[in-house]
Amino acid sequence: MTVDVQGYNPRTGAPVGDAVAGTPTDEVDRVAGAAAAAFPAWSGLPATDRAGVLDALAAALDDGADELVAVADDETALGETRLRNEVGRTTGQLRMFADLLRRGLHVEAIISPADPAVARPDVRRMLVPIGPVAVFSASNFPFAFSVAGGDTASALAAGCPVVVKAHEGHPQTSVLVARILRGALAAAGVSEDVLGLVHGFDAGGALVRHPAMRAVGFTGSLRGGRALFDIAAARPDPIPFYGELGSVNPVVVLPGAARARARDIATEYAGSLTLGAGQFCTNPGLMFVPDDAALLAALAEAVRATSTGPMLSERIRDSYVDGAAGRDALPSLAEGAAGEGAWSVAPRVWQVDAATFAAGPDRFTEEIFGPAGLVVTYASVAELVSTLSHMDGSLTGSVHATEDEPDDAAAVAAALGPLVGRLIYNGWPTGVAVCWAMHHGGPWPATTASGHTSVGGTAIRRWQVPIAYQGWPQHLLPPELRDHNPLGLPRTVQE
Amino acid sequence: MTVDVQGYNPRTGAPVGDAVAGTPTDEVDRVAGAAAAAFPAWSGLPATDRAGVLDALAAALDDGADELVAVADDETALGETRLRNEVGRTTGQLRMFADLLRRGLHVEAIISPADPAVARPDVRRMLVPIGPVAVFSASNFPFAFSVAGGDTASALAAGCPVVVKAHEGHPQTSVLVARILRGALAAAGVSEDVLGLVHGFDAGGALVRHPAMRAVGFTGSLRGGRALFDIAAARPDPIPFYGELGSVNPVVVLPGAARARARDIATEYAGSLTLGAGQFCTNPGLMFVPDDAALLAALAEAVRATSTGPMLSERIRDSYVDGAAGRDALPSLAEGAAGEGAWSVAPRVWQVDAATFAAGPDRFTEEIFGPAGLVVTYASVAELVSTLSHMDGSLTGSVHATEDEPDDAAAVAAALGPLVGRLIYNGWPTGVAVCWAMHHGGPWPATTASGHTSVGGTAIRRWQVPIAYQGWPQHLLPPELRDHNPLGLPRTVQE
Repeated sequence: MTVDVQGYNPRTGAPVGDAVAGTPTDEVDRVAGAAAAAFPAWSGLPATDRAGVLDALAAALDDGADELVAVADDETALGETRLRNEVGRTTGQLRMFADLLRRGLHVEAIISPADPAVARPDVRRMLVPIGPVAVFSASNFPFAFSVAGGDTASALAAGCPVVVKAHEGHPQTSVLVARILRGALAAAGVSEDVLGLVHGFDAGGALVRHPAMRAVGFTGSLRGGRALFDIAAARPDPIPFYGELGSVNPVVVLPGAARARARDIATEYAGSLTLGAGQFCTNPGLMFVPDDAALLAALAEAVRATSTGPMLSERIRDSYVDGAAGRDALPSLAEGAAGEGAWSVAPRVWQVDAATFAAGPDRFTEEIFGPAGLVVTYASVAELVSTLSHMDGSLTGSVHATEDEPDDAAAVAAALGPLVGRLIYNGWPTGVAVCWAMHHGGPWPATTASGHTSVGGTAIRRWQVPIAYQGWPQHLLPPELRDHNPLGLPRTVQE
Repeated sequence: MTVDVQGYNPRTGAPVGDAVAGTPTDEVDRVAGAAAAAFPAWSGLPATDRAGVLDALAAALDDGADELVAVADDETALGETRLRNEVGRTTGQLRMFADLLRRGLHVEAIISPADPAVARPDVRRMLVPIGPVAVFSASNFPFAFSVAGGDTASALAAGCPVVVKAHEGHPQTSVLVARILRGALAAAGVSEDVLGLVHGFDAGGALVRHPAMRAVGFTGSLRGGRALFDIAAARPDPIPFYGELGSVNPVVVLPGAARARARDIATEYAGSLTLGAGQFCTNPGLMFVPDDAALLAALAEAVRATSTGPMLSERIRDSYVDGAAGRDALPSLAEGAAGEGAWSVAPRVWQVDAATFAAGPDRFTEEIFGPAGLVVTYASVAELVSTLSHMDGSLTGSVHATEDEPDDAAAVAAALGPLVGRLIYNGWPTGVAVCWAMHHGGPWPATTASGHTSVGGTAIRRWQVPIAYQGWPQHLLPPELRDHNPLGLPRTVQE
């Protein structure tokens, strides 16, 4: 028995389209088996051919953008502008990985030639795909972190078929994206089973348990991610679980920046906090500011001027309201307005001093998904730096500074560095640039695997394993490892 | 209450030196805390300075080689020649990582310059050390996979302090190595707590649970490794567990090679199977050969000519005898002789056909640690290839072929590739070359993390995490990421 998955319009609370049947376990088994059957041919394609297929997938999504945006807006209420940009981000990710494949940056070939002086054989190492993988869609990015999102793009680039567990918040969008991808795969002469789709809570667990799955990518809540991580780790053959979970993304405003740019910082903060109704893993949930009346007044004014659209689902709205209620005893800095729509909420920002924060950091550092912020005032930079050490891991840490306080900026960077995956200077954490160098990760509970990223060029590494060839004749080596480097790859050769 | 750890001489069964006290939990806590306290200074050293310290550690071990070899021979009976070579391997590993640090190959810097056309900020990514780590010594390499072994060398190179759990089989050797390393650290002006040592089963579990530990390296049994993996995964904050566990290392002899080189193959097989009394993770426990009477006769003759020294401990000897008894119902191909020494055993090789193997592969693919081999005869290369698919993961797979059977060699490589971390052509799995390209890993149960290696240049990656700097001014960036590349690192720059 499985539970149907029904999408709803966050503006009205009304159902969107028909319910989608939850995938029963035997069907999960069939889909996973089909992905496994598609693995040899997909992984065996030359990388430049896989790049061509990724480009075809991107083109098909771009072609379908009007319909995709319309369906996703019904299910998420994120609005046409944002959703159209998100389709672009999604197809941009696919094209970035196509570009990396053509450049051969995914191979990481290392060649240690034979050295008779130390009786060393010829050893040549490269990365190869790990096998079929499972990807769990996120609620808050119906395209960029969902069926055709970054996990899928990087895994397909690596040569891994993907079975996606659709997010319950946007089932119709998920079905449509999968239909477009599978159609484009078939049109490109590739098995459409390179991309499979399953629905429902039970299907997710079955997928992580499935023997054919060799790794899992996940973006979502701490509780859900931990439960699936535990399943992956408890398998007879444990598999890597790359989960991006909760993050409060500390932002530090140094005294000089507060004096020089109070109004801009306040406006930008309010914008970052409420962007997408605060439903970003990089939302700035925690900000450390000097105890500066002008800055605090500007922050309060900027927050009061905010208004957010509806949240993605009733459950997410309820969870935000519950989390905010848990802070009712704290002094409020300001509240914004709830915009129109069934599941709209008011942005809320509280204020405590650094001593209060340091006395019970666990009370303040659990992520509240949505437009909720905590402003922590500090009396001195020394107190600030000591307070920062009380935090868990986050995806990002940001510092606002002027040119006149480099030592303080360096001290904050040194304190935040071990706690985050990305350090931002005079910027805001929301808006994760898709580029080669991006790292979207961080220590627990930001992720389950701090050595890896779910955005950027190196995201492909999650789906690859090394293999070494020892003593093989040239004609039996993969082209990536032959002496004359027929693919023109960047390679490291031991001297 | 803790249990003392007593080493024994495998030749006589007599105790070696005094028992070493098992480390109580509060002392584990102190040692782990000291490692954490040493982290900022050690990780903050310029890489070239860390390289100098690694070289100093290597020199100190070389200086102490006479005493080290004597103590280790008492505790392991591996013999002076092997042990002296192993000290050289161990110091060679330290020096290889020093060389990689000086070349900057550990940084993996990627720079994505700002691109106003797509509103992309400046993003720069590099690898940094993950924090203090735990390393579990192996029984079978008292130097190269123990206190100063590959895990320790790569972690120290990364900038991570190491707390080693000594192996119960060679406590005196472990104490001596740790004393030499700590003395050399202090002499180099570095905190000696960069290298800590604990003893005993309970201390191992406490170490994996300790909040200060950020990752674990392990080489040992499937059962022990799985238990510690489960502890690491069950932590409130799960940490990566890099375990190298069990492996049967399939070797395939193709028909042409069997006809052309039966005698050489037989001699080399017997040598590889019984080297170090078969106590290698790369021991060739499983060999697939054509049903060729001449080759089988040569194999039997070569095995009968073998004789092995004592195994490392009474427990390992008992485990070998039990494992071998479990195969008593199988047809024997040949047995060698037990050499002198209390814990010596006879090499044993059994023979089944491919159909029998395929009907119940689990019976045949569990590693028996020691000089035990199974020879599987196949009737055709097609049957061989189909039979190979019934195996679990291994560290290595080997193919013996002539120049006249390239298609068969390629077919076997394709079948073995997804199951192993290293493919060897006309060679044997024992003897893992320490070089930049080496990959010593593989799918479960060979390791708990098939994306990583415990030998070779990239072993350092287990102890590193990425961090991205976004929008930072030049003077506040780490030197690794500044525009003018003051360290002269190899870097990837997005175009």
